[in-house]
Amino acid sequence: MAKAPVLTPQAADFPRWYQDVINKAELADNGPVRGTMVIRPYGFSLWEQMQQEMNARIKKAGAQNAYFPMFIPQSYLTKEAEHVEGFAPELAVVTHAGGKQLEEPIVVRPTSETIINEYFSKWVQSYRDLPLLINQWANVVRWEKRPRTFLRTTEFLWQEGHTAHASYEDARDYAAMIHRDVYESFMVNMLGISVVPGRKTPSERFAGAINTLTLEAMMGDGKALQLGTSHELGQNFAKAFDTRFLTDTGEREHVWQTSWGCTTRMVGGLIMVHGDDNGLRVPPRIAPTQIVVLAVKDDEAVVAKVREIGRELDAVGVRVVVDDRVDTPFGRRAVDWELKGVPLRLEIGPRDLTAGTGMLANRIAGGKSPVELAALTTVVPQLLEEGQALLLSQSEEHRKARTVDVDSIDEAVEAAATGWARIPWAKLGPEGEETLGEQGVTVRCLVSPDGSVPEADDTPDTLAIVSRAY
Amino acid sequence: MAKAPVLTPQAADFPRWYQDVINKAELADNGPVRGTMVIRPYGFSLWEQMQQEMNARIKKAGAQNAYFPMFIPQSYLTKEAEHVEGFAPELAVVTHAGGKQLEEPIVVRPTSETIINEYFSKWVQSYRDLPLLINQWANVVRWEKRPRTFLRTTEFLWQEGHTAHASYEDARDYAAMIHRDVYESFMVNMLGISVVPGRKTPSERFAGAINTLTLEAMMGDGKALQLGTSHELGQNFAKAFDTRFLTDTGEREHVWQTSWGCTTRMVGGLIMVHGDDNGLRVPPRIAPTQIVVLAVKDDEAVVAKVREIGRELDAVGVRVVVDDRVDTPFGRRAVDWELKGVPLRLEIGPRDLTAGTGMLANRIAGGKSPVELAALTTVVPQLLEEGQALLLSQSEEHRKARTVDVDSIDEAVEAAATGWARIPWAKLGPEGEETLGEQGVTVRCLVSPDGSVPEADDTPDTLAIVSRAY
Repeated sequence: MAKAPVLTPQAADFPRWYQDVINKAELADNGPVRGTMVIRPYGFSLWEQMQQEMNARIKKAGAQNAYFPMFIPQSYLTKEAEHVEGFAPELAVVTHAGGKQLEEPIVVRPTSETIINEYFSKWVQSYRDLPLLINQWANVVRWEKRPRTFLRTTEFLWQEGHTAHASYEDARDYAAMIHRDVYESFMVNMLGISVVPGRKTPSERFAGAINTLTLEAMMGDGKALQLGTSHELGQNFAKAFDTRFLTDTGEREHVWQTSWGCTTRMVGGLIMVHGDDNGLRVPPRIAPTQIVVLAVKDDEAVVAKVREIGRELDAVGVRVVVDDRVDTPFGRRAVDWELKGVPLRLEIGPRDLTAGTGMLANRIAGGKSPVELAALTTVVPQLLEEGQALLLSQSEEHRKARTVDVDSIDEAVEAAATGWARIPWAKLGPEGEETLGEQGVTVRCLVSPDGSVPEADDTPDTLAIVSRAY
Repeated sequence: MAKAPVLTPQAADFPRWYQDVINKAELADNGPVRGTMVIRPYGFSLWEQMQQEMNARIKKAGAQNAYFPMFIPQSYLTKEAEHVEGFAPELAVVTHAGGKQLEEPIVVRPTSETIINEYFSKWVQSYRDLPLLINQWANVVRWEKRPRTFLRTTEFLWQEGHTAHASYEDARDYAAMIHRDVYESFMVNMLGISVVPGRKTPSERFAGAINTLTLEAMMGDGKALQLGTSHELGQNFAKAFDTRFLTDTGEREHVWQTSWGCTTRMVGGLIMVHGDDNGLRVPPRIAPTQIVVLAVKDDEAVVAKVREIGRELDAVGVRVVVDDRVDTPFGRRAVDWELKGVPLRLEIGPRDLTAGTGMLANRIAGGKSPVELAALTTVVPQLLEEGQALLLSQSEEHRKARTVDVDSIDEAVEAAATGWARIPWAKLGPEGEETLGEQGVTVRCLVSPDGSVPEADDTPDTLAIVSRAY
């Protein structure tokens, strides 16, 4: 029985499939101001799960949460030359407030290095105050020319970490630790995304950084998406804001700093890495709902049973939703849960009660098979972990299958039509990077042949990963 | 041994004492843009605890979190006449973005009724979509003439709930339920504040509401602080934004709505209700740190012992910090924990190890006495609960002792010099309210003689609670 597809098939038009998923799974709407978005409850619950997990990891890394104002005097932005050059074209400016024109225009934060350094310079006195490790969860604004829901929005939500250290080495190591132990670990183990950790080329660095570490993911169509960055800021902002500390030998030195951020863009990445023609597939470890238990039809015993199963699964720590909305046709509900990518769907009808079984649909592995209801509390957690592992291995296989090693710019451009290319950085260099850029292909990051992150831009055997990107 | 006080005594200058606590306990700094604040890690940890607790209660009340853009087209604000009149003087306006002047100025949300109704009118089709229960945690901006840290800041953090219902009664009951079961319950049971629930007079209502329920708390100096409000919006915004639904009899009717919010102002309230001349006193149930275990001096066995005690208390669910910073003088650390209001402080020195005891300072009840280390895991949770109860009863006694029943406006003004006055609303009325207002005294809320919330403005035996307010 052929049904009209709910979504545009991925193969037909991947960007349109992406927008279809966002609409049909009720993840987000476009906001009234161009480039803004309304994050709907289901979309927000994905972000909340990510927040919760990342927040715990960030605290474990020693950083404390705080909150800085979103209004920054325009003069702060201009203190660090590269920073203002990078962000000036994207700023939103408040010129009037309280019914009057302001004496100095105010900028809505595009990021908070400047305002945070103003306070770090007050709070940091001596080496005893270091390292100073701060994080905030906030909204930021960057005026986007080509906005796209979750991936590039004028206002987005993120966490931004800002730290000050006593030495170059301490700052470098902390930026690398966040990159590896917080970001990469979270993306691989929780989001099930086989990200590639690497180093940005000088032209792709954060405005004001001396080094930017990145995590790049391959989307379903072979394009790249940058999922998080961790920056070494050197002493650039410390010099601009005179953030200094008294060393244990009595000298006043500028601090060494890092900043690092992950955004609501991760929701977009999740959709584009794991989604298929039936909708989203959410990794069980961060799924707001891990299993839905459906009453197939309006039957008192069935409704009682699904509620009982709900309680049992909840008691063993499974995030379960009981769907007993028997007024709504079963098929419509099943399609909706499929669209929303809930990992498991257990369907219970009157005949199942006597058999002591139910039909269990596996959104990640695919397929549908009977399951003993008595075994649910052991089977479900096991299937969830299997689903988690499968998503990660599929992501890794997809990335590897679509990555090729090339030796020339022409080959790299050709490869970027369907995936990623790996090319020796020595054969490319900043000039080759520019040539690629003219054809819409960018260097996503630099990596070492063994997969580690190069410690400098000019390490001899460094490879560049190039592709088209969102 | 007389020491110079760290803080201005409350009796000498209460507002200055408040600012001193905020500075010395490192709760917040003033932001660079007038009226904004930087919430420092310890201040933010208080807010995080409140958020976590309230968020759980809000979810239990059936509301789902979402996120709406902070940028609202100016035209939205003007759709509801009272609303724009109330908020226009406080708006911050973005006129330039992305290097260009905008065609339509954008307002930074002072609250989100307008933008949310724009989407409710798309999402709500039939009675099956109701009630629609949404909450968001966000920053909002209201340009304040007389800013004061935490209490009135240009940008503040809050949660705002927005709901749509099929009938007047459903909306009324939901607003009342949030007021009672989420807000009042949280403030009494978690913050230990003996709030008074009441109804705002027409002149004090939220701009656009048909009824505003409030929770008023008495500060240490006898003034009032409004800690949270829950509004019945009637059909005002529904009509302005044409938010309608198809009833089960096939008619298209406007929805009935509520909105409700609590803000970072609660942190200010917490300070001013429970604080004393030695600093903050944090209610144990929301204290980020419930007990600090201090190593009195640099001794290997002592440091090992405090760490061991830390692990033991952590294992029974107590939020504990181990202070083994033996480089810093003991007295300075003790004063700092006192300033920060950590409920219990356990001091361990070398002699305590042989005795198997420690000195336990009780920040809430006051005093310091020896405690058996072997009994800590039972004694500490008990003392924390006792401290929680004590703060609430002190708050209640203070409020009752400083509240008087009066019969005339003159008496009310006199009473408001040191506390609250209760006066029959029939003797005051809107005109008396205006007369009071000219002398800096406001009607905080209307209550019934039995303490319940009156169901209308003109209920015969209604009492008005009047006072000066923050």
